[in-house]
Amino acid sequence: MPEKVLIYSKFPKALMVRIGERFELLDAAGKPPSEVFSAEQLSTIRAMITAGGTQLPGRVMDTLPSLRAIVCYGTGYDGVDLAAANERNIIVGNSPGANAASVADLAVTLMLAATRRIIPADAFVRDGSWVASKPSPLLRALPGNPGRRIGIYGMGEIGRKIASRMAAFETEVGYFSRTKYDLPYRSFESLDALAEWCDVLMIAVRASTETHHVVNADTLKKLGSDGYVVNIARGSVIDETALAAALKDKVIAGAGLDVFEKEPHPPGALTSLPNVVLTPHVGGHTQDSHAAMQDCVIKNLEAFFAGQPLAYPVR
Amino acid sequence: MPEKVLIYSKFPKALMVRIGERFELLDAAGKPPSEVFSAEQLSTIRAMITAGGTQLPGRVMDTLPSLRAIVCYGTGYDGVDLAAANERNIIVGNSPGANAASVADLAVTLMLAATRRIIPADAFVRDGSWVASKPSPLLRALPGNPGRRIGIYGMGEIGRKIASRMAAFETEVGYFSRTKYDLPYRSFESLDALAEWCDVLMIAVRASTETHHVVNADTLKKLGSDGYVVNIARGSVIDETALAAALKDKVIAGAGLDVFEKEPHPPGALTSLPNVVLTPHVGGHTQDSHAAMQDCVIKNLEAFFAGQPLAYPVR
Repeated sequence: MPEKVLIYSKFPKALMVRIGERFELLDAAGKPPSEVFSAEQLSTIRAMITAGGTQLPGRVMDTLPSLRAIVCYGTGYDGVDLAAANERNIIVGNSPGANAASVADLAVTLMLAATRRIIPADAFVRDGSWVASKPSPLLRALPGNPGRRIGIYGMGEIGRKIASRMAAFETEVGYFSRTKYDLPYRSFESLDALAEWCDVLMIAVRASTETHHVVNADTLKKLGSDGYVVNIARGSVIDETALAAALKDKVIAGAGLDVFEKEPHPPGALTSLPNVVLTPHVGGHTQDSHAAMQDCVIKNLEAFFAGQPLAYPVR
Repeated sequence: MPEKVLIYSKFPKALMVRIGERFELLDAAGKPPSEVFSAEQLSTIRAMITAGGTQLPGRVMDTLPSLRAIVCYGTGYDGVDLAAANERNIIVGNSPGANAASVADLAVTLMLAATRRIIPADAFVRDGSWVASKPSPLLRALPGNPGRRIGIYGMGEIGRKIASRMAAFETEVGYFSRTKYDLPYRSFESLDALAEWCDVLMIAVRASTETHHVVNADTLKKLGSDGYVVNIARGSVIDETALAAALKDKVIAGAGLDVFEKEPHPPGALTSLPNVVLTPHVGGHTQDSHAAMQDCVIKNLEAFFAGQPLAYPVR
């Protein structure tokens, strides 16, 4: 009989097909497990799958008395209360690197789409404005990429893949990262120093309490009126109210955002802006990336149920 | 007194400011010069500026009896009847390479935007579909870039810049070009062989009578149902009717198009499709690119009026 695994976050069913072939899945689909399953059912659950960004506090873990493994689908685990898990003797695993190429690709896609105004340009062609030669202030010529200063905040696997991609566009690449790397890019001592130097700030840092709202009104002002922000990490890293104000007041030129403080609820102050490109947290959403993340989830669960250390443990 | 220069195509006025500081500009703004200026005025014109894609036949040259130089703003000169110019002892110049980075950047932007479905993704966030968890068949997971086969048709300055950019996305790059180059990409003997091999066909070939509709229904079929076409060259290279049908019938997955057979009149069969990204011929439309193209135009005109060979002659 296959082992039972609780699905905690709301995932599209298609993503769980392969995992469902190996394990018996109990799908809470984003609701509190105790609302969906009986205490008896929950008492037998030893492992769960969650999306790293979903809040998973100790009180939820307490509804699962046999829980010993939390497996994150994706690289993030910022929603998981690691201290609470540790206190309860629950191990946590993730899918490191599995989605790095896909997320880095989306970061560059958002950067290019924002700086070349792809959303208003496409609308201009489709709605007849081009035929009518309508004035299009949004489509005026903007600075190009050669020589542009790209600042990458966070230099994990995703940040490094963003760097190698962006460098191919004849840009200058700099970064700020807690970890020191031997990389052919200019390293900065602080986020402030990076923001002072760069025109485009691309956020690839792991979310934590220390990075909460670390990109604020001051940071954005440093980017300048030809500046852009791209965020494919977590919405919490940016003060979203300050970002919306900076975009509205042209303190910066534009933004490309895949993540938001409250998902799936991007604020109207962002969704009403013409100078942003918005995507529904689809950074890791390619066939290859999902297959690789599912491989990691399956390997973590198989190791756990075999009584071995997780294949991809957090820390 | 500054020399007189006729502006033949319709250009945004902002693009002619620097050129207007050196020369006296007579702006026909896309109309037949004989409709805008008197025969007497035209009889004194020795040089004109045109957009390479604008049709410039011998009969228009004949309305300008003193014309001896045609200077193209941009790299293209496909609209200029070179034989007719030659017969009339008129030299032709262009702006080679000046816009290559900008055009290559837009090619990659269109490729990424099409393959990551940026237009429907942005709409999904803005129109409330994300909040409502609406099913979104257009946003299902698609193949990612690593290992993807990128076929580049035409390996001039723009094609080579597309290649170096796309290679940074962990793709395989191949190309077909009349000219042989020593490049670290796989070379194919024909467009058919390239299309058979690749998933994404990126068109960067110079337009001519030989390349008219050379990308047709057969070529598209070879790309397959995960295939994409990106065109930043000239609309005439693709059979647009065949392309619209292939996109509608899912013979290929999508397209990114900056150029169309009749500009600014993209057909409704394309503008009504959800699986395309359309831009209004803005490949070379960045500040740096315009500055570089204007430099070339000014250098060509200065050389001509000084009685010297053009700085950037065609052929």
